[in-house]
Amino acid sequence: MTSITSIDPKQFRRALGAFTTGVTVVTTRGVDGTDIGLTANSFNSVSLEPPMVLWSLDKKSSNLQHFMTGDHFAVHILAADQEAISNRFARGGADRFARLEVGRGLGDMPLLDGCATRFQCRTTYRYEGGDHVIFVGEVLEFDGSDRQPLVFHGGKYGLLLKKPTDLEGSDPGFGDDWLGFLLGRAYFQMQIPLRADVEKRGLEDIHYAILSVLGAGEGRSPDEISRLVEITGHRPSEEHFHVLAAKGLVEIRTTETGGVRFTEAGRQYAIQLLAAGKSGEADAVRGLDEQEARLLTILLKRVIRETEVNLPDVWRKENFWREDNIRGARAAAPQPNLENNRS
Amino acid sequence: MTSITSIDPKQFRRALGAFTTGVTVVTTRGVDGTDIGLTANSFNSVSLEPPMVLWSLDKKSSNLQHFMTGDHFAVHILAADQEAISNRFARGGADRFARLEVGRGLGDMPLLDGCATRFQCRTTYRYEGGDHVIFVGEVLEFDGSDRQPLVFHGGKYGLLLKKPTDLEGSDPGFGDDWLGFLLGRAYFQMQIPLRADVEKRGLEDIHYAILSVLGAGEGRSPDEISRLVEITGHRPSEEHFHVLAAKGLVEIRTTETGGVRFTEAGRQYAIQLLAAGKSGEADAVRGLDEQEARLLTILLKRVIRETEVNLPDVWRKENFWREDNIRGARAAAPQPNLENNRS
Repeated sequence: MTSITSIDPKQFRRALGAFTTGVTVVTTRGVDGTDIGLTANSFNSVSLEPPMVLWSLDKKSSNLQHFMTGDHFAVHILAADQEAISNRFARGGADRFARLEVGRGLGDMPLLDGCATRFQCRTTYRYEGGDHVIFVGEVLEFDGSDRQPLVFHGGKYGLLLKKPTDLEGSDPGFGDDWLGFLLGRAYFQMQIPLRADVEKRGLEDIHYAILSVLGAGEGRSPDEISRLVEITGHRPSEEHFHVLAAKGLVEIRTTETGGVRFTEAGRQYAIQLLAAGKSGEADAVRGLDEQEARLLTILLKRVIRETEVNLPDVWRKENFWREDNIRGARAAAPQPNLENNRS
Repeated sequence: MTSITSIDPKQFRRALGAFTTGVTVVTTRGVDGTDIGLTANSFNSVSLEPPMVLWSLDKKSSNLQHFMTGDHFAVHILAADQEAISNRFARGGADRFARLEVGRGLGDMPLLDGCATRFQCRTTYRYEGGDHVIFVGEVLEFDGSDRQPLVFHGGKYGLLLKKPTDLEGSDPGFGDDWLGFLLGRAYFQMQIPLRADVEKRGLEDIHYAILSVLGAGEGRSPDEISRLVEITGHRPSEEHFHVLAAKGLVEIRTTETGGVRFTEAGRQYAIQLLAAGKSGEADAVRGLDEQEARLLTILLKRVIRETEVNLPDVWRKENFWREDNIRGARAAAPQPNLENNRS
C-alpha cells in the first residue's frame, strides 16, 4: 500500500472504486412535470425503523433542482440484465425515458420495470456533503424480485456470484485440482450415458466421434473426418466408416459426388444423440445456477481460445462448422427444461 | 413484483439486500483509549472535492459514543480473502483486535492490513438518519491496493468477477454453447501437446491413459486398469500393457505379487508427463485471472459431482486414488509460474 497525503480527485475516485456497489436509477417527477432519472451508485440503506435510504447527487447536476424541489424520489436497484438501462440513464442529452415502458408511482413519479428492487420515498432530509447533496428519504413503498443484481466495481460492471462454500480447500478425490483431470473427468462422465446409447446400436466411441464430426457438416472425405476425429485420440480406419454404412447411418461417396453424408436414418440418429447430450447437460449443470452455468461456458471458451494454438488446421473454426450442420435441427429435438435446474 | 404498503422491517431489510455492497471495517480510537472497530456495509462515497465519504451506525450500538466523541475514523474496504476479519468485527463480545497486527493512523486510530483500500477521515458531519446516525468524513489520507474485494449481497458474501465481455451472444464456432462440446474441446486441446510427447516415445493415447491410471496408484491388475481407462472410450488390451513393458516403463506381475507397477524409468516418465500437463494448464488459464481460474475449478467439480452417478464403481473416489499415487512426486517436478498468468 502506498500512502497519499495530498489528495488528487482522480486517484481518490479510483480508490473509491474499490468499494463494490449495486447500480441504481433514481427517478422523480420534475418541476415542469417531465420525467427525471439518473444512474447513481451512491445509494445505501440508513434506517430500518423508520425505513430510510440515502443517495447523493453532484451539486453541478442539471437534475439537482428537481430533487431539491420535489418531495418524492424512487430508487430502482438494477438487475444484472439492465446494463443498457444503466448506460442510458448515465448519459447526458436525449430523453432517457424514450421508448421505455414507464409506470407511475407516488407523486406521479416514473417507475421502471424489470429491476431487482424498487423503493418509493418521500424526501426527509437534504444534507450538505461537499460537492454533493445527500438525499435521505423515508421508504413509503417498495417492491422486489429475486433478480440477480447489476454490480459495479473499479469503474466497470461486474458479475456477482454466490461465494461457493467449496471455495477453500482441495478435495483429494479430484486429483489435486489439476484442470486437465477435472476437464477430462467432467467430459467423460457426461459422455457415459451417450456411450450406453451408442453401444446399444453395436457402435463404439469412435463411431460416435465420426457421427459428431458429420453433424458439424457433411461432404468431407473419410480421411478428412479421420483427421478431425484424431483430436480425441481415436484414429478411425476405413473399417469404421464401413460399419456405419452397413448400419445404414451414412453413405460414402467420392468427395466429388458428395463425400461422407448422413442417410435419413443417420441424421435422425444424430439428432437423437444431440438431444440425449443436451439432456445430459441439463443433469450436469443441476448443481449450478443460471449465472454459474453461463460463466462456466465463458471460462471454457477462454481455455479453448488459449489452447487453440495446439490445434491442427482442420479444427480451426472456419474449417470446422459447415452450413449444413445438424444444429439447426436441434429445434425439433426435445429441449431440456433448464428452468428446473436453477438452484 | 408484489407491492408492500405497510412496511415490515424484516421484509425491508431483505429488500435492501438486493443492493450489492462491499464490506468495510470502520475503526476509531475510543474515548477511553481503546481500539474500536466494527463491520459496516453502509459505506459510500459522497464528494470528490473535498474528498468525503459516509457510513451510518445504529443509534443502539455500544460503539456509538466513540464515534460521536472522536473526531476521526478509518474505513477499511475489505479484500476477498478477509471474510474472517469481516466476521470478527461483526460479532459482539471479545476483543476484536486480539492477535491482529494493528498499525496506527491519524489520531492514533487502529489501522488494519491486507485491505483493498483504507481511508482515514476527519468527522465533518453527524446527521440524523432515523434509527441510525450518518457519519460524513473528509478523507485526509488513503492507501490502496489492487486486491479483489469482499462483496455482500442478499445477506451473504459473494464473489465478484469482471463482467466478461463475451457474456452475451453465442459464438457459432463453439457449437451452440453445448457444454459437452466445450468440455471435450477444452480437454482435448489441452491434451494435444502431451500427446505429441507420448507419440515421440512410440506410444498412443491409450498407453498414456494406462500410465495416468497407474499414476493414481499401482498394484492393480491389467483388467482393473482397463476398466478404469474405459471411461475415455479406449479399451486397453493385453497387447497395450506388453508394449509398455517392452519399453521398460511398467512391470506386470500377478496381483498377488504386486500387479502392474511402474519401473523407475516409467515413474520418471509419468512425473515428466505430469509436469508437462501442469505447464499446459498454465497456458490454458492464461486468459483467466486467479479468481476465474479458481472458479472454473469449482464449477467443474460441481459438474463432476452431478454426473458421478453415471460412473462405474471402479471410478468412485475411494476406489480410485491410492496412497502410492505419484502426485506426491509433483513437488519435485517443475512448477508453472501461475503469477505470470494473471491478467
